[in-house]
Amino acid sequence: MSKLVIVGTVAFDAIETPFGKTDKILGGAGTFIALAASKFNINSAVVSVVGGDFPPKYLDFMSEQNIDISGIEIVKEGKTFFWSGKYHNDMNSRDTLTTELNVLENFEPKVPEDYKDAEVVMLGNLHPLTQISVLNQMTKKPKLVVLDTMNFWMDCALNDLHNTMRHVDVITINDEEARQLTGEYSLVVAARKIYEMGPKFVVIKKGEHGALLFHDDNVFFAPALPLEEVFDPTGAGDTFAGGFVGYLTKTEDYSFENMKTAVIYGSTLASFCVEKFGTERMQNLNDSEVYKRLDQFKSLTQFDIELT
Amino acid sequence: MSKLVIVGTVAFDAIETPFGKTDKILGGAGTFIALAASKFNINSAVVSVVGGDFPPKYLDFMSEQNIDISGIEIVKEGKTFFWSGKYHNDMNSRDTLTTELNVLENFEPKVPEDYKDAEVVMLGNLHPLTQISVLNQMTKKPKLVVLDTMNFWMDCALNDLHNTMRHVDVITINDEEARQLTGEYSLVVAARKIYEMGPKFVVIKKGEHGALLFHDDNVFFAPALPLEEVFDPTGAGDTFAGGFVGYLTKTEDYSFENMKTAVIYGSTLASFCVEKFGTERMQNLNDSEVYKRLDQFKSLTQFDIELT
Repeated sequence: MSKLVIVGTVAFDAIETPFGKTDKILGGAGTFIALAASKFNINSAVVSVVGGDFPPKYLDFMSEQNIDISGIEIVKEGKTFFWSGKYHNDMNSRDTLTTELNVLENFEPKVPEDYKDAEVVMLGNLHPLTQISVLNQMTKKPKLVVLDTMNFWMDCALNDLHNTMRHVDVITINDEEARQLTGEYSLVVAARKIYEMGPKFVVIKKGEHGALLFHDDNVFFAPALPLEEVFDPTGAGDTFAGGFVGYLTKTEDYSFENMKTAVIYGSTLASFCVEKFGTERMQNLNDSEVYKRLDQFKSLTQFDIELT
Repeated sequence: MSKLVIVGTVAFDAIETPFGKTDKILGGAGTFIALAASKFNINSAVVSVVGGDFPPKYLDFMSEQNIDISGIEIVKEGKTFFWSGKYHNDMNSRDTLTTELNVLENFEPKVPEDYKDAEVVMLGNLHPLTQISVLNQMTKKPKLVVLDTMNFWMDCALNDLHNTMRHVDVITINDEEARQLTGEYSLVVAARKIYEMGPKFVVIKKGEHGALLFHDDNVFFAPALPLEEVFDPTGAGDTFAGGFVGYLTKTEDYSFENMKTAVIYGSTLASFCVEKFGTERMQNLNDSEVYKRLDQFKSLTQFDIELT
């Protein structure tokens, strides 16, 4: 069975939305990615760092989901990465209120020995130098490397990002970031420019407007499921990425055709993530709920056409 | 064979985009709707008004597309409705530079005798009182009435709009307008509120982000085809509506299932419309190009999923 190694933050989030606010709750890209990927019953490990203030129950919970946590370093005297933000009424934009890097500041990822030959590597949103350090620790060339990044690194570490991108098969970014990275407004043209930077598959996340998968001259689109209520969008993009890599790791098929299904799984899991604060919904999600929603995705997008 | 009657502007547009600008060219909602619907070789008539300055060659051209123009009144001493606008660099927003109502100011639509028993009525974006006056002229209750409208009428003629909506089966509006009309941010909830205002089918147009079709608890989504270049978005929404009603008129099946296909046809035709200024692309569009693009829509959205 294939193995998946994930690098990403394991963190505290405090979230305010029009529906309410939370104290410090479990968050972080690594957490959301791992939780989503764990739905596929694969072998996965998270590489991250937390402080002495991080509740052991959170780590226990991850272990119970069959997530290998031996790569999560605990810096006893340090404090866990903390982010807080407030969403506007439209839930599409937010203000960051606090970013305390804490133990993340000197984070040096250490891939567990058992996972140095993992077939799939998911590089969650972090400094590109941290991301490439994970790749450098792999003893076997992975079959698939997926990179998530954001505009922040384009602003302040663009050269490093380009270096890391050269070793990546799939990149996931949002539409504005794709435009910033390439200087092209058309996402079709932007994707083509990104191929030349390394990734041969480009996933462009458009939030409530769905996601696009580009490869060569092929393009596939998955909508976001129209929901009655988006309660908290935090982690939706990471949950999408986790569903995407989790499905690919499980099926061991890294073709464009199979990635289409992986995008649908990612969108499906993300549609649950936003229904509650933080990881709450992902913590309480069973297979039959997932299957039911996959069927909704089919109804939402599938059509018969006879050329008249 | 079913008949389609369309009410809408037949006008001059002058358009400026980052790619160039035009003099006064053929435009208007009625024109775009009729051109798109004419691709289905149905019997259709446009009800509208133009001034003495309107070139006969434009009317001849419409006749050649098998569009009945006997309901287009020519006010010899008047001037044709004129709109000019300038698109911003992102092509998603625009400034209106000029709106000269001219002959539209006193427009009283007159449905041709032959079309007073039409099965399908398309009410293009106009004052709701003008729209309902067309319905009042019908001698037989149409099988399908589709209404397009915009925020302008919500601002200045909301009561009239509500009155007209009560007689309508399908409404097409954009996402912001659906939110304005209902006070609901969630489009799922907004659609449900709109059902209570009359239309049992709600089409929400999201421009480059596609279109949603709601009916009861069902929802269907059609993306916009990702394009290398959007040259001029003018008329895309009307072309979508024209493709939608044209297909339904041709197939005489007004079920939700068939409307899904109609939405795909609408999106396909709209994807051509934006490739050139004004109606230029729609004037030079053959069936094999349409079929090819329908296939692209299939590739873009269709997937196989086995529940693992």
